[in-house]
Amino acid sequence: MIARQQEYFGGKRVLVTGGLGFIGSNLARRLVQFGADVTLVDNLNPNYGGNLFNIAEFADDVTVNVSDVCDHHSMKHLIQGQDFLFNLAGQTSHMDSMRDPETDLEINCKAQLSILEACRNFNPGIRIVFASTRQMYGKPDYLPVDEKHLLRPVDVNGINKMAGEWYHILYNNVYGIRACALRLTNTIGPRMRIKDARQTFLGIWVRLLLEGKPFEVWGGEQLRDFNYVEDAVDAFLVAATHDEAYGKAFNLGAAPPIELIDTAKLLVEAAGEGEFVIKQFPAERKKIDIGDYYSDYSFIRDTLGWEPQTALKDALGQTIDYYRKNLQHYL
Amino acid sequence: MIARQQEYFGGKRVLVTGGLGFIGSNLARRLVQFGADVTLVDNLNPNYGGNLFNIAEFADDVTVNVSDVCDHHSMKHLIQGQDFLFNLAGQTSHMDSMRDPETDLEINCKAQLSILEACRNFNPGIRIVFASTRQMYGKPDYLPVDEKHLLRPVDVNGINKMAGEWYHILYNNVYGIRACALRLTNTIGPRMRIKDARQTFLGIWVRLLLEGKPFEVWGGEQLRDFNYVEDAVDAFLVAATHDEAYGKAFNLGAAPPIELIDTAKLLVEAAGEGEFVIKQFPAERKKIDIGDYYSDYSFIRDTLGWEPQTALKDALGQTIDYYRKNLQHYL
Repeated sequence: MIARQQEYFGGKRVLVTGGLGFIGSNLARRLVQFGADVTLVDNLNPNYGGNLFNIAEFADDVTVNVSDVCDHHSMKHLIQGQDFLFNLAGQTSHMDSMRDPETDLEINCKAQLSILEACRNFNPGIRIVFASTRQMYGKPDYLPVDEKHLLRPVDVNGINKMAGEWYHILYNNVYGIRACALRLTNTIGPRMRIKDARQTFLGIWVRLLLEGKPFEVWGGEQLRDFNYVEDAVDAFLVAATHDEAYGKAFNLGAAPPIELIDTAKLLVEAAGEGEFVIKQFPAERKKIDIGDYYSDYSFIRDTLGWEPQTALKDALGQTIDYYRKNLQHYL
Repeated sequence: MIARQQEYFGGKRVLVTGGLGFIGSNLARRLVQFGADVTLVDNLNPNYGGNLFNIAEFADDVTVNVSDVCDHHSMKHLIQGQDFLFNLAGQTSHMDSMRDPETDLEINCKAQLSILEACRNFNPGIRIVFASTRQMYGKPDYLPVDEKHLLRPVDVNGINKMAGEWYHILYNNVYGIRACALRLTNTIGPRMRIKDARQTFLGIWVRLLLEGKPFEVWGGEQLRDFNYVEDAVDAFLVAATHDEAYGKAFNLGAAPPIELIDTAKLLVEAAGEGEFVIKQFPAERKKIDIGDYYSDYSFIRDTLGWEPQTALKDALGQTIDYYRKNLQHYL
């Protein structure tokens, strides 16, 4: 598979929106290894995941363009001549989407339409993989959740991401702009935002643990699944290089699911230090809590041959190692 | 049921967005009969359904406020003090949404969020019924389509209306702003737009028939269901007056479904004149055609007691009568 990807991406022009963020930068790192000509777009909004340190190791091998995907003039320019677009720019904080729904709409809907219109008008041959989210399923009717599950988002972010995903599928189906979507579950690993819980609650756990403070586990019994970021990157690369992917939305996921409290224990074990406290769910979060969630990822496994390779304990260990070395760049 | 509605709406303050449009004006007429204090908001955009003639019979009994629901300052003012909001303003043309997706987003998403934020901040006790659409189901997996069917919209309008509907359900669930949605199927009757097919293909059929020209039936074998506008109005009133409705989205619909070609024949029969030609589906429409569609409306029937009362032939007859008298006001 790696040889195939090398062949696919070597010398290809690749645009990554949200390219200085968590998954974008890990993806960029891999694309650089494959010899792709990589441009990263990111607005470096301090509330999002963009961080120049994420690409410090390979900054000379990529082009960084600091701009907002909502800026349709710059996107129109940047999209031209690209072979692939990995479309990862997005507002991901559920609470921010409730406090400021209009900004969430700008990024997760309006900017997506404007990107797709730019592709349609100026680069219809491009191939797009869109970073979607399991958040749009809401509170599951059944587990594991497959792609036939109704979409019933429980926050503004989930609604807008749902619309953003559908624009991609629509432009594929109506205009033949090859596009597909990956519905990410909890993704963890080096380069994630750990300053706060905006990107993932595991970020703030890691930070507090490394600062020698107890971290908070809300609830504790909820089941979740986690993908290591390298596995998520694999999924983006696999989706981009398979024609069968286009027009479809695929769940990512990992088995077996794990309770939050056991995840916390595993983190402490992987770190060889740390402690946590169990807290009641805060009232404002409780309303949009979804209970247990884990994905059925057999559709992408059977269609594209992807499945996660990294055990959670290893993922947590790699993550802790990374932030032990680089903590000061993420605070 | 009528006595109950009279009691509910008599003396109540009711805001209707899209109130000069097809369904909005028919609803306003009924509310005026019930003695409600009715304000109609409409921007009179010539591409939409607003038409001052629609309220000519009862213009003195309502307050008309010509403004755009995208204008959040005016909406913030208008929403205050209202007991009910019938939220019918929307862009409904599928082709327009593909030609200009951003405008569709402004109306069907951004304005909806801004209306709901205004309710949350300035009138959380309001009750809202949102006009949604069966368009968001896309091409059915099975028939009749019930509310458990996956939402898979096939145009930008369907995607944005889906988001707009979900904002309402979300604000109900999270903030307790009582809101529900009706997923309308093809609605026909007096006061519909007949200038073109922007609102319903049946509009342009009626116009051409009354102008003595043959109308075009695209395809012909597709099954559809039609609600007479008075039945749709009943559904809005019933939904507003039942607490069980809030937080839910209900299909409207009618049985039995009918092929387009038989609908055309029935229209000619009801009119006692007219002719039509069968045409191949135009290529750009074919891509977003959904084949057969008809609803399962048992959820609203069993929950709220609504079902359509008007036979299609009678609906077509009433429609033709109205436009024979008033054609010049709709061209």
